[in-house]
Amino acid sequence: MNMGSIDKAASDDQISSLPSWRYKQVDTNSELDANSNSNFCKRRRSTIQQQQRQFHIIISLSLSLSLSLTDTIHKMGDLRSKFMEVYSVLKAELLNDPAFEFNDTSRQWVDRMLDYNVPGGKLNRGLSVVDSYKLLKEGKELTEEEIFLASALGWCIEWLQAYFLVLDDIMDGSHTRRGQPCWFRLPQIGMIAANDGIVLRNHICRILKNHFRGKPYYVDLLDLFNEVEFQTASGQMIDLITTIEGEKDLSKYSLPLHRRIVQFKTSYYSFYLPVACALLMAGKNLENHIDVKNILVDMGIYFQVQDDYLDCFGAPEVIGKVGTDIEDFKCSWLVVKALEYCNEEQKKLLYENYGKADPACVAKVKELYNALDLQGVFTQFESESYEKLIKSIEAHPSKAVQAVLKSFLGKIYKRQK
Amino acid sequence: MNMGSIDKAASDDQISSLPSWRYKQVDTNSELDANSNSNFCKRRRSTIQQQQRQFHIIISLSLSLSLSLTDTIHKMGDLRSKFMEVYSVLKAELLNDPAFEFNDTSRQWVDRMLDYNVPGGKLNRGLSVVDSYKLLKEGKELTEEEIFLASALGWCIEWLQAYFLVLDDIMDGSHTRRGQPCWFRLPQIGMIAANDGIVLRNHICRILKNHFRGKPYYVDLLDLFNEVEFQTASGQMIDLITTIEGEKDLSKYSLPLHRRIVQFKTSYYSFYLPVACALLMAGKNLENHIDVKNILVDMGIYFQVQDDYLDCFGAPEVIGKVGTDIEDFKCSWLVVKALEYCNEEQKKLLYENYGKADPACVAKVKELYNALDLQGVFTQFESESYEKLIKSIEAHPSKAVQAVLKSFLGKIYKRQK
Repeated sequence: MNMGSIDKAASDDQISSLPSWRYKQVDTNSELDANSNSNFCKRRRSTIQQQQRQFHIIISLSLSLSLSLTDTIHKMGDLRSKFMEVYSVLKAELLNDPAFEFNDTSRQWVDRMLDYNVPGGKLNRGLSVVDSYKLLKEGKELTEEEIFLASALGWCIEWLQAYFLVLDDIMDGSHTRRGQPCWFRLPQIGMIAANDGIVLRNHICRILKNHFRGKPYYVDLLDLFNEVEFQTASGQMIDLITTIEGEKDLSKYSLPLHRRIVQFKTSYYSFYLPVACALLMAGKNLENHIDVKNILVDMGIYFQVQDDYLDCFGAPEVIGKVGTDIEDFKCSWLVVKALEYCNEEQKKLLYENYGKADPACVAKVKELYNALDLQGVFTQFESESYEKLIKSIEAHPSKAVQAVLKSFLGKIYKRQK
Repeated sequence: MNMGSIDKAASDDQISSLPSWRYKQVDTNSELDANSNSNFCKRRRSTIQQQQRQFHIIISLSLSLSLSLTDTIHKMGDLRSKFMEVYSVLKAELLNDPAFEFNDTSRQWVDRMLDYNVPGGKLNRGLSVVDSYKLLKEGKELTEEEIFLASALGWCIEWLQAYFLVLDDIMDGSHTRRGQPCWFRLPQIGMIAANDGIVLRNHICRILKNHFRGKPYYVDLLDLFNEVEFQTASGQMIDLITTIEGEKDLSKYSLPLHRRIVQFKTSYYSFYLPVACALLMAGKNLENHIDVKNILVDMGIYFQVQDDYLDCFGAPEVIGKVGTDIEDFKCSWLVVKALEYCNEEQKKLLYENYGKADPACVAKVKELYNALDLQGVFTQFESESYEKLIKSIEAHPSKAVQAVLKSFLGKIYKRQK
């Protein structure tokens, strides 16, 4: 259930290394000392003024463009810090929830648990609710309340993600997450983490109740989160039961299975859910947006195929990890494609070497992937997916919805990490 | 999170061992051959007829009483089998949920997982929704739809219970549950059980959506289940963090802590939730029934104190298990009371022996409980609680609500198991 690195928001480093266009002064007075009493001079002055005006317009334009770029980047920083402010507000409310009698110990426990598990990711899913909502409002300035509410919905998705990850790590017996030990690995946490997962899940409903109970779309929000959570858990289930230890069987792996796992385990909550939240906030009926759901599900599948591809062919120093899908017997798009294209001999090799920790086995599998030109197969898949997605997006009647979908696609197309 | 044995529903064995009053024939014709022509005979006949009539009335009364008792027991059997029928319907719907693409393997997995974890308990919580709804309808015959809906809500609570138990067993590292191995202990299940727990939780929302989406109280049902789940998880949290391994510290245990754990971990979902479901179905506003909530929370606490008492003083052959609260360092009402009444020397003994597996230590703790007359303290608590509860119940303006609450109290007062 990861969403790799669709994060294109500028980091603080990126922002501080930008040229300071904001502070650039344009001197438009330097030529005004020219002699203004002869015709020549008049003409010249006129020409100069015209040039100056043109120059001024160009500079202004470029300045305004530069400013708007800087502004955007600053706004992205702003957005992120505003988003983090909303986290603090939501956390404070949860730590004082009147439905439970906190004491110091339990309040501190939840406080620490939230800070450890909720805001440490890239926050792509959460931020994209605010982005999408802005695009749906077609450039209208959002009110403070709208920003807060869209951010709160974004945080609900981040809470959902944290809940999945805490429990996934227990199920997978993982060791690290986001560069730190998994929550359940910490001293004195252990299996209490499973209950913390449940608490995280329950916080979503508390946030929704606190801030959306009076909204006409409240019940739709509850239904949406419930349905998406059900779909994610169901996707996780087919993933888990397909890869039960001791029953490693490559013959179970196929493109339809890969698609089903990805669609349910990742696409709905990572791609559909943020847009669906924004649509509900914008007063839309989700039943009229089945096409949007389908496009986002397909985008999620495209995204996961990239992830599978990068796990094997990406540069570890770029993707930030060393892929282990082959060792882990993952139902990766690559192994599924390899099974589709291989001959009997290659199939035998795959069966004998896939899912083994031995680096020699891993190397043999990678060699086979190269022999089958899976990089080429991927490149073709990538451009075909893109074409298809763009076509579907442009068939959508609303330009605002198109903008939302294109923004998502733009963030992931041809990503290298 | 157990609710011990408030089950008073007759078992099949109990029903079949009842005398067959239903089939008892009363011969009212045997005296009609008496001579009817003399006055004496007339008087005698009159007397005999009078006696016959009286006898007939008595027999009829007793027969009708007997029949109604049998009827009740049969109806209880009926109710139970109807309730089980509803389970089959709900399960079939979940196994064909259009929000997920099942294949044979995943359908069989969920099918087996449900049968193993959901209907194997005493079903007290679930059945009490139907009972409570009936009492709220004040004897009016329920329609088939009403029975189905009340049963479906009852099953939602049983699903909630199954979800808690599956995850609790993982957290506690338990071995058996309801006389069979814990779900996660079965071959090839393991940690997939954690995800199954989540699936169980999600099924509640699916059931509610399938059957209550159009009802005016749908959003209140969602809020109710969400809030109660949050409270239960919060209660579980304080229980878990109070008893973290390696930090066994009796000085943390107190009556307010015991009360808080029980209130949140058990009372809300076992006592308040079934009645709240019935109230919503009957068109009531829960905000007007805070007093009902408070009474049921207190009843749940009384119930848990009984449970703690029986764990130590109950007859194992009656309660069906050998209590291990002392060995397990549980925050039991008994240890809390012992801490309240003991002198310094006894306190030292308690600190040295509580939470040890050694039977000699357990025996010393039990000896102390006896020296402090905790049985007497319990008996007094029991009658005081009963008086207080009855008084609160009778202060309620609605006779129907009183009946619901008295029915709950009747099921648990002075229970021996």
